[in-house]
Amino acid sequence: MLRFRIVLVEPLYEINIGYACRVMKNFGFRELCLVRPRTPITEVSKVFAAKAHDVLESAIMVDSLEEAVKDFDLKIGTTGKLAGPRNVLRSVVPPWHLHELMKHEGKVALIFGREDIGLTNQELSMCDVLVNIPTSEEYPVMNVTHAMAVILYELSKARIRPKTRLANTELREVALKYFSDILKLVDFPKEKEPKAKLAFKRILGKAFISQKEMQILLGFLHKVHLRLSSYVTGKS
Amino acid sequence: MLRFRIVLVEPLYEINIGYACRVMKNFGFRELCLVRPRTPITEVSKVFAAKAHDVLESAIMVDSLEEAVKDFDLKIGTTGKLAGPRNVLRSVVPPWHLHELMKHEGKVALIFGREDIGLTNQELSMCDVLVNIPTSEEYPVMNVTHAMAVILYELSKARIRPKTRLANTELREVALKYFSDILKLVDFPKEKEPKAKLAFKRILGKAFISQKEMQILLGFLHKVHLRLSSYVTGKS
Repeated sequence: MLRFRIVLVEPLYEINIGYACRVMKNFGFRELCLVRPRTPITEVSKVFAAKAHDVLESAIMVDSLEEAVKDFDLKIGTTGKLAGPRNVLRSVVPPWHLHELMKHEGKVALIFGREDIGLTNQELSMCDVLVNIPTSEEYPVMNVTHAMAVILYELSKARIRPKTRLANTELREVALKYFSDILKLVDFPKEKEPKAKLAFKRILGKAFISQKEMQILLGFLHKVHLRLSSYVTGKS
Repeated sequence: MLRFRIVLVEPLYEINIGYACRVMKNFGFRELCLVRPRTPITEVSKVFAAKAHDVLESAIMVDSLEEAVKDFDLKIGTTGKLAGPRNVLRSVVPPWHLHELMKHEGKVALIFGREDIGLTNQELSMCDVLVNIPTSEEYPVMNVTHAMAVILYELSKARIRPKTRLANTELREVALKYFSDILKLVDFPKEKEPKAKLAFKRILGKAFISQKEMQILLGFLHKVHLRLSSYVTGKS
C-alpha cells in the first residue's frame, strides 16, 4: 500500500482549503494535513469542499512542516519557481515522473506551499524530490488547488483500470472486408485501393475504437454493402 | 498552427470565469468564448483571473454553442458523466489521448459544460470527440476549472521542450568507476559487487540525473575515494 498525505503549508484562503478537499476526493485521496493555516476553516471552505466535507472534517492541523511529514518515507515538494540548471535546490521533475512511484509501497507526503510565497528554501531542502508543472513562461504561477488537480491526476493515472473493451481483431477484419468490398462496388480506382484500405485501418486504430463502436460501424457498413450489392444485381 | 478556443457554456459562477482565464494563461491558451453566461463578469472574476486579466478582457460572448464553434475543425466536448460501454453518445477518451492531436494543424474548440448540469445530450452530439478525466468513483464531479487545468496541462505537455541536460554516458561511467573502486577500498564482499554496481547504475538511471547533479555526485565520490585511498596507503 502507498499511503499519501497531502500537506498544505500555511494556507491563506478559506476557498483553497475547501477546493483542496474536493480535488483530493475527486482523485481518491483522503488525508489532509494543514500546517499553521493563516485562515480558519469556515463555512466558505465547506461550500467549496462540496461533497468532500468528510475530507475537510478529518483534516489534521499541526504546528510545523517537520511534524506534518514525521515518519513519512518520501517527502515530495511542489514548486512553481524554476531555477537555472545549476541550482540543485530547485532541481525538479515533471508530474509524470511520479508514475514510477506508484509501483512502490510506503508513506508519501505531498507538500504544497503558501499561495503567496510558496515553500521556503529551508522547506524545499527538507523534500526528497520536487515536482514542477511545466507552464507557460508568460504566466507560470498557478493557483495551488489547480496545481494539486494536475499532480493528483497524474498520480491517480497509474491506478486506472481500463473500462471499455477494445474492438477485437476479428471485428476489425470484418470491417476491412466490408470496406474492401464496398470499394469494388463503387468502382474505386483499383490502383488506389491498397492505400485506401490502409488509411481506413489506421483511422480505426488511432481512434482506439471500442467493441461497441465497432458493432455500430459494422451495422452501417453492412447496410451500405447490402444496398450497393442490390443495385449492382439490379443493373446486371 | 493549431488554434484553440476554450468555450464555457452558460457558466454560473463569476469565480469560475476568472479561474478559467488564469488556468488558460498558465498553459499558454488565450482565446475564451462564453456562451450565454448566467453571471456577469464582475470584479470577483477579475480578482480570480489574477494576472490573466488580458484573457478575461478579450473573452468573446455569443448566444449559442453553434455560434461559438462555427468554422472550427474539431469540437472536443468534456464530460464528467460516464455511461456504460454501450452508450456511444458518451463514449469518451482520456485526456492523454489528446497528445496525438498536437501533431496536427487546424482550429479546435474545447467545450466545457455548465457547473450544475454539464453539457446537454444535444450539445454532446455536436462534439466530434468527448474527453473524460478518470476520477474516483466515490466523487467524480470536478469543479470545471480544475478539470480545465488537467486537460490544458495534458494538451500543453506535447509542446514541452526539455530544459535540463541529462548526465552523459562518460560521466555515468566515471561515477560507476569511482563506486566500484570504493567498493574495493571498503572490502565489500566480492560476490555482491556486481549486484551493487548494477543497483547504483539503476538508481542514477531512474532518477534521470542531470549533468549538474552528476557533477555534484562526482565531487562527492572523488572526495570519498581520495580519503579511503589515503587510509589504505597509510595502513600499508
